[in-house]
Amino acid sequence: MHPDLAPIAFLLGTWRGEGTGVYPTISGFAYGEEVRFSEVGKPFLAYTQRTWALDDGRPLHAEAGYWRPQPGGRLEVVLAHPTGVSEIQEGTVGEDRIELAATVIGRTGSAKEVAGLTRTFERAGPDILRYHVAMAAAGQPLQVHLTAELHRVSDPA
Amino acid sequence: MHPDLAPIAFLLGTWRGEGTGVYPTISGFAYGEEVRFSEVGKPFLAYTQRTWALDDGRPLHAEAGYWRPQPGGRLEVVLAHPTGVSEIQEGTVGEDRIELAATVIGRTGSAKEVAGLTRTFERAGPDILRYHVAMAAAGQPLQVHLTAELHRVSDPA
Repeated sequence: MHPDLAPIAFLLGTWRGEGTGVYPTISGFAYGEEVRFSEVGKPFLAYTQRTWALDDGRPLHAEAGYWRPQPGGRLEVVLAHPTGVSEIQEGTVGEDRIELAATVIGRTGSAKEVAGLTRTFERAGPDILRYHVAMAAAGQPLQVHLTAELHRVSDPA
Repeated sequence: MHPDLAPIAFLLGTWRGEGTGVYPTISGFAYGEEVRFSEVGKPFLAYTQRTWALDDGRPLHAEAGYWRPQPGGRLEVVLAHPTGVSEIQEGTVGEDRIELAATVIGRTGSAKEVAGLTRTFERAGPDILRYHVAMAAAGQPLQVHLTAELHRVSDPA
C-alpha cells in the first residue's frame, strides 16, 4: 500500500448498511448501500458506491471516484454521479472523522442543479462508518439529505 | 435494459487492448487497457477503465464514471480521475462514432491544470473499438494524447 494512504487506510474493504434520505422537495426514503474502497499501490483509493430501495431492492443511486490524501491531514475526493453531476470535494481527515465540502460541482446539460454538497464521515468503531451528506439543491439551502451507517463486511482486497 | 441505452448498447461488456500516449511535455509510452461498461436497468452505463505499462505491468491511469444518452443523438459522460480531475463531457453518438468534448473540467487543489479534453470513439467492427483522446494541458494547445484499439472480451454482464 502506498504510504500516503495511511490516514484513510481504515476505509479499505467493502461496507454495507442502511440509510435514510430526506429533503423538503421529496418524500423521505430508506435505502440499502454497499461501498467499496480498493487500492492498487498508488496514492489514492478507488471508491464505488451503490444504493437500493429497501422495499423492493430496485437500484437507486450510484457513484464512483477516487480519494486522494494530501499532506497536513487534507483530503481530496473526485466523484462522478450517473445523474450527470461531478464533484470535487476537499477537506480534512482526522483520526475518527472526515469532513469534505464541494469546491467544484460540474453538471451536464440535462442534470438538475446542485449548488452545494458536504460529506461528513465518522468512524464509530473499527468496522463501523457513519456518514451524512448535506445538499443545497432545488432552491433549498444546504441541509442534511442522507444519513447512513455502514459495517465492514470484508477485509481489504 | 433501459430503452434509452439503445444508441450506446454496443459498448456493453468488457474490452481489452493496447494504446499509445504522446505529448510534447512527456516521453511517449505504450499501455494495456481494460474497459468495462455495465447497466442496471437505468438510463446510463457505468464505466470503469484502467491501464497498465506494457513493459512491467505497473498500474498507470484509471477512470470511472457514467454514460448518459440523451434525445436527438446526444450523449453526456461524467468522469472522475484519480489525478484529481473531473470531466463533464457532452457530444453526439452516431451509428459508428461517438464524439465528446469537455464542457466542465474540475480539479482539486493539488491537480495539474487541464484546459481541454475531447474523446472520439469509432466502432471499427462489432467487437472492435478505437478511440483517441485529445488534451490541452501544461500550456499546450489541444492535441492528440492517447490512441488505442480495444477488443471485446466478454459479452454484456
